[in-house]
Amino acid sequence: MAGRHFLQIPGPTNVPDRILRAMDYPTIDHRGPEFGKIGRKALEGMKTVFRTNGRVVIYPSSGTGAWEAALVNTLSPGDKVLMYETGHFASAWKALASRLGLEPEFIESDWRTGADPDAVEQRLRADSEGRIKAVCIVHNETSTGCVSQIADVRKAIDACGHDALLMVDTISSLASMDYRHDEWGVDVTIGGSQKGLMLPPGLSFNAISDKALQASATSGLTRSYWSWDAMSDLNDQGYFPYTPATNLLYGLVEALDMLHEEGLDNVFARHTRHGEATRRAVEGWGLEVFCREPDHYSAALTAVLMPEGHGADAFRKVTLDHFDMSLGNGLSKSADRVFRIGHLGDFNDLMLSATLSGVEMGLELAGVPYQRGGVLAALDYLSARDQDAAKEQM
Amino acid sequence: MAGRHFLQIPGPTNVPDRILRAMDYPTIDHRGPEFGKIGRKALEGMKTVFRTNGRVVIYPSSGTGAWEAALVNTLSPGDKVLMYETGHFASAWKALASRLGLEPEFIESDWRTGADPDAVEQRLRADSEGRIKAVCIVHNETSTGCVSQIADVRKAIDACGHDALLMVDTISSLASMDYRHDEWGVDVTIGGSQKGLMLPPGLSFNAISDKALQASATSGLTRSYWSWDAMSDLNDQGYFPYTPATNLLYGLVEALDMLHEEGLDNVFARHTRHGEATRRAVEGWGLEVFCREPDHYSAALTAVLMPEGHGADAFRKVTLDHFDMSLGNGLSKSADRVFRIGHLGDFNDLMLSATLSGVEMGLELAGVPYQRGGVLAALDYLSARDQDAAKEQM
Amino acid sequence: MAGRHFLQIPGPTNVPDRILRAMDYPTIDHRGPEFGKIGRKALEGMKTVFRTNGRVVIYPSSGTGAWEAALVNTLSPGDKVLMYETGHFASAWKALASRLGLEPEFIESDWRTGADPDAVEQRLRADSEGRIKAVCIVHNETSTGCVSQIADVRKAIDACGHDALLMVDTISSLASMDYRHDEWGVDVTIGGSQKGLMLPPGLSFNAISDKALQASATSGLTRSYWSWDAMSDLNDQGYFPYTPATNLLYGLVEALDMLHEEGLDNVFARHTRHGEATRRAVEGWGLEVFCREPDHYSAALTAVLMPEGHGADAFRKVTLDHFDMSLGNGLSKSADRVFRIGHLGDFNDLMLSATLSGVEMGLELAGVPYQRGGVLAALDYLSARDQDAAKEQM
Amino acid sequence: MAGRHFLQIPGPTNVPDRILRAMDYPTIDHRGPEFGKIGRKALEGMKTVFRTNGRVVIYPSSGTGAWEAALVNTLSPGDKVLMYETGHFASAWKALASRLGLEPEFIESDWRTGADPDAVEQRLRADSEGRIKAVCIVHNETSTGCVSQIADVRKAIDACGHDALLMVDTISSLASMDYRHDEWGVDVTIGGSQKGLMLPPGLSFNAISDKALQASATSGLTRSYWSWDAMSDLNDQGYFPYTPATNLLYGLVEALDMLHEEGLDNVFARHTRHGEATRRAVEGWGLEVFCREPDHYSAALTAVLMPEGHGADAFRKVTLDHFDMSLGNGLSKSADRVFRIGHLGDFNDLMLSATLSGVEMGLELAGVPYQRGGVLAALDYLSARDQDAAKEQM
Repeated sequence: MAGRHFLQIPGPTNVPDRILRAMDYPTIDHRGPEFGKIGRKALEGMKTVFRTNGRVVIYPSSGTGAWEAALVNTLSPGDKVLMYETGHFASAWKALASRLGLEPEFIESDWRTGADPDAVEQRLRADSEGRIKAVCIVHNETSTGCVSQIADVRKAIDACGHDALLMVDTISSLASMDYRHDEWGVDVTIGGSQKGLMLPPGLSFNAISDKALQASATSGLTRSYWSWDAMSDLNDQGYFPYTPATNLLYGLVEALDMLHEEGLDNVFARHTRHGEATRRAVEGWGLEVFCREPDHYSAALTAVLMPEGHGADAFRKVTLDHFDMSLGNGLSKSADRVFRIGHLGDFNDLMLSATLSGVEMGLELAGVPYQRGGVLAALDYLSARDQDAAKEQM
Repeated sequence: MAGRHFLQIPGPTNVPDRILRAMDYPTIDHRGPEFGKIGRKALEGMKTVFRTNGRVVIYPSSGTGAWEAALVNTLSPGDKVLMYETGHFASAWKALASRLGLEPEFIESDWRTGADPDAVEQRLRADSEGRIKAVCIVHNETSTGCVSQIADVRKAIDACGHDALLMVDTISSLASMDYRHDEWGVDVTIGGSQKGLMLPPGLSFNAISDKALQASATSGLTRSYWSWDAMSDLNDQGYFPYTPATNLLYGLVEALDMLHEEGLDNVFARHTRHGEATRRAVEGWGLEVFCREPDHYSAALTAVLMPEGHGADAFRKVTLDHFDMSLGNGLSKSADRVFRIGHLGDFNDLMLSATLSGVEMGLELAGVPYQRGGVLAALDYLSARDQDAAKEQM
Repeated sequence: MAGRHFLQIPGPTNVPDRILRAMDYPTIDHRGPEFGKIGRKALEGMKTVFRTNGRVVIYPSSGTGAWEAALVNTLSPGDKVLMYETGHFASAWKALASRLGLEPEFIESDWRTGADPDAVEQRLRADSEGRIKAVCIVHNETSTGCVSQIADVRKAIDACGHDALLMVDTISSLASMDYRHDEWGVDVTIGGSQKGLMLPPGLSFNAISDKALQASATSGLTRSYWSWDAMSDLNDQGYFPYTPATNLLYGLVEALDMLHEEGLDNVFARHTRHGEATRRAVEGWGLEVFCREPDHYSAALTAVLMPEGHGADAFRKVTLDHFDMSLGNGLSKSADRVFRIGHLGDFNDLMLSATLSGVEMGLELAGVPYQRGGVLAALDYLSARDQDAAKEQM
Repeated sequence: MAGRHFLQIPGPTNVPDRILRAMDYPTIDHRGPEFGKIGRKALEGMKTVFRTNGRVVIYPSSGTGAWEAALVNTLSPGDKVLMYETGHFASAWKALASRLGLEPEFIESDWRTGADPDAVEQRLRADSEGRIKAVCIVHNETSTGCVSQIADVRKAIDACGHDALLMVDTISSLASMDYRHDEWGVDVTIGGSQKGLMLPPGLSFNAISDKALQASATSGLTRSYWSWDAMSDLNDQGYFPYTPATNLLYGLVEALDMLHEEGLDNVFARHTRHGEATRRAVEGWGLEVFCREPDHYSAALTAVLMPEGHGADAFRKVTLDHFDMSLGNGLSKSADRVFRIGHLGDFNDLMLSATLSGVEMGLELAGVPYQRGGVLAALDYLSARDQDAAKEQM
């Protein structure tokens, strides 16, 4: 098909040309002096994205690996872990914990909000013996477009004086939405390369608090590839205990430069604005945003409920076949009931306009009941906002 | 700025990734065996695009060079040339002819239509001494979005039995709009790389009839770089008399593959459809398409008249600053009065939707009087047409 | 520094332009139809490289991950594993096995040969209770340049009728040296992307026999990321249970094409020839090849012993600083005593000539005692061999 | 074939990865603000390479175009031009002058030295009527590897007080060998992109003295594409009168950065050193360097005479077929009698070692009588020189 593909799943995201070109350089000796500089830049730079002064670990792996790393470094067989069912990915993380021999306890939900800090607090208060060793929350649930307020979860844990570690998955929020590892008191943050960092998949991250590091000294799960210990000495010089994914690291260094050139706060504001424009389009179409709680709206993606009797996957096939645009599918509980619009990463107003145009034309072509004018509502918002911004600059 | 730039001038056009990657290979020996294969592919492939069985010449130069080449190979000092003022580029070609010592005679116009074959015929009939040696027409005038009907011009020449050569500039139509060098009886066709061929600028082309070749044997203008003679023997083996622009030729071979994979007729239909959608948007905004004659509408670009009292350049600055989209400016006679929307090259429905969204939001932000809904009109057309196409496929 | 860097470590190897360009395409939806085709090509293609009709698994990870995967899928806590100390990497694999809770038993050696099948047989015969569940051998020990004869190890296991699984690390031999997973009766073969496959690091592989698959059904080590089970259903359609390293898979598909265009047997012959030329150069310099057993010479790399009193690392610094060439260092037991010349991957006669020239000039500049003429000996061999080949072609 | 191709013709040269990547970015609007910055960088940067404070013009064309530009801007039909037969390219320039209607007068030679300033002076003294309007010299004759001493030619012109313009072709010396447009009093210098500037072919240059500019105001040859006038106003803002070769300009800006990072004097010293090493190899083989005058040796390439009875082209075919290395052929007068080794551009000691190894093995395989040891002589020189440099640094 002619023209550019529109990759509007909520990750992997559109990789900008600068990053593709940066990764397109010959691989170098991962034990040589030039590599050390790159390694240090990558490791130091990731601290600025996690907003932490603590340690960051980079794995050559998918984000799934970083989930596993967070658990195996800090916990012991049979440990209880409190997890919150925000959606498909929270459920997948829970399944992973079970496979590792942990005992996850799940706070169930209908997926249409982020985590409820009060529910967390309640459970922790009930754990008088302190058997719960970790609380695991997905910051931005990629399957639903619902955000959990991490600072409030931290307060909930503190409120009952519970000693559990707080682990947070930011795979689809990191570098797209405001996140503060240190300030919010998170012990392990999990990240991946292929969303807000604008890279292809293949790198994952752990940001680690001192408390988590101490836990790792005595924890009993077996680990080797994911072991934080092996990383630490070599990382100080920018090296890694086994062969790193060199070319993805080239791209990461470029991505960090791009994020700081734009300014992280501007990046976050851009995503927030695109989230609002998208929801106005959804409203304009007379459709329903899957996330039910305005305070939990995601700035990275918007999941949209299909009208009764209309499958999301048939609709998504139309947008792919006719408009060369990939939208995200509904997963497990929400399969075929929602489609997801990714508006994160290297993205701007016209790319969003194209995306929403593709959805509107796809609804038409797929025979889905909708009202015309969603795109128009989004354009109104985007151009009005810009006028305000323009006025402010005067 | 985040996200992709929208390059919606009527050329250079968006270079697709496949072509950028093809050009990104190391340069090779332009006298070695591997090069010969590439050279032949490029030269043979260009014949399919010009729809000719005659000779094609490729220059390492801008399209301007191919204008000059057409004239210096076939004409002699003081020769009369009949040219048609379709717009800025026709005027530039005329100025070039003057600089070369030719005597261009200009059929003047207000730029808002293509060439009138009757006017051509009239002038030729008046040239009873046969002093006019060539008729030069711009097929798709890039400054106005008006198309000249070349087959009709040919008929006009034939009708009066005049012997002048017919030279046609297809720089902004080649590989975007239907064009037939042999069937339409054109003697020299001029092309460039940076429009429908989806390449960066740097290559230009002449397609040459036997009659033009014969004229070159006796013509008197001095020439060296542009000389067709020097090309012919070496071209047969895929080589060139001086160092060719190797990496652009890599890209050209890839572009030819892409065009034939899609099918030239499909490429033309796509452009026609995008032209219509764009004009519906213009109508939706209550603005005026610069081209006044529906039969002359361009499928490659649309020039839009600004409302009285509103400058096109201030508006274009807004779309660039706010939406990272480059639109074409008005040139000479139409400076600041029109802006031009390029919808040619590697382009699809969503890229057009983005482009039109950018125009609509730009009109709003720039305070230009317009009606909302141009984008909506275009989306209606694009999705309706697709439904028809879908029905046809059943 | 001007000109190309010479990356002559034994991996990562020089990534060819075709592969860099293939990886430089935009990331696509890993759940879409286009991805499925790429995934299937990659998975099917890897079978041809492992020479297996069984299953192959691809991980987004370093080769180290595939070591871990082989063990955690097939073994249970406390299982005995017979490993052979061929060098640094065999030792690292043993350390990994210990960390996972296995009981590795090590057949020690001085690193200067491949594994001795008789020694393996002896140990297995002594294991009358069948406590040894796996025999782990490094095919091509990257730290020493010694190759183990896997077919002979298989015979040794069969000779004593022992039931242990045979696991083989081919990280630095796969796609450079002859290897036959099925014919040699290997149960799990471990591979990586950054050596003979000519890719950057970031992908690793397991080829799996039916016996190994059966073992995985009852084995007791915990696993999630590395689990073969999760892969199988999705792999059949070309998909993966978690986000794959899409752009590296693009490169893998290109690498497989390149290997088959050249022909695997030609690839192996090329490496064998370069190994011999390199050893002739070493002999010409009056230095000693670290591998003591001609039947165990590696075709992928050559480790060279430094003369007494001269450190390898100071010499390597000279070749890097003066000639922009990275050579491999000695590891653990052989640190500073050997340097390693990688001659694997996308490599040819002139690249080898450059490499050996850099070594010869480096020896001169570093004041290492040597005889002139190593390069000359290599050139004599390379041009003589070519003459033979030329004669054969007549 | 496996591994890298060795492009050792004297241009186009090996394009470094940095430049290929820089050119691999999307084309932008050549009339937009971002382009203006690039245009200015390119135009200003070229002044530093020509070492001029005067004007520089950039053409989208081969170097041949810049030859033509120099003549058509400054001369009138029938003007006498004194040219010096340094080799094939000087002859080609002369033929071009004839085609343009000039009267070139040729100082003939056997091609084995650079221009003789005394011979130039003699001719000019004989021209008492001042009919000679320009003296045209090739600085580094690419077909022979002989350099002309431009400063001495200038002195010769001045010595007889002749008013002719001095025009110098630096296509294969610019950015590889010391050159000073202003200091040496050159009026028009001609350059190209594909040699020392490390770019693909497609850009050419004129550096212009005030005297040449004045000549252009009254000269009578027709011109349009090559006209300096049209360039000047737009160039001041970084723009061009017709569509420039945008992506090659991206590469040029990167090339200028690379040259200045290394330092022009270091670039020249590197080339000088590689020229000397190459000639030592030629001597070592018992072959003859084509250039007979040591003061005229080129640092950019070395032409080598074949022994009687052995054709250069058969030998070159062997190096291409067996070693994937392209060497330059003999041209016209020297066809099949010499081969040419390019050692210019992005090149280093190991690339030269590979190149000379390929020549030595090629001589062996092609059955050309030679002595072994040319490579060894070069390595001795390269490593000895480095020791000196190393000592100096202490």
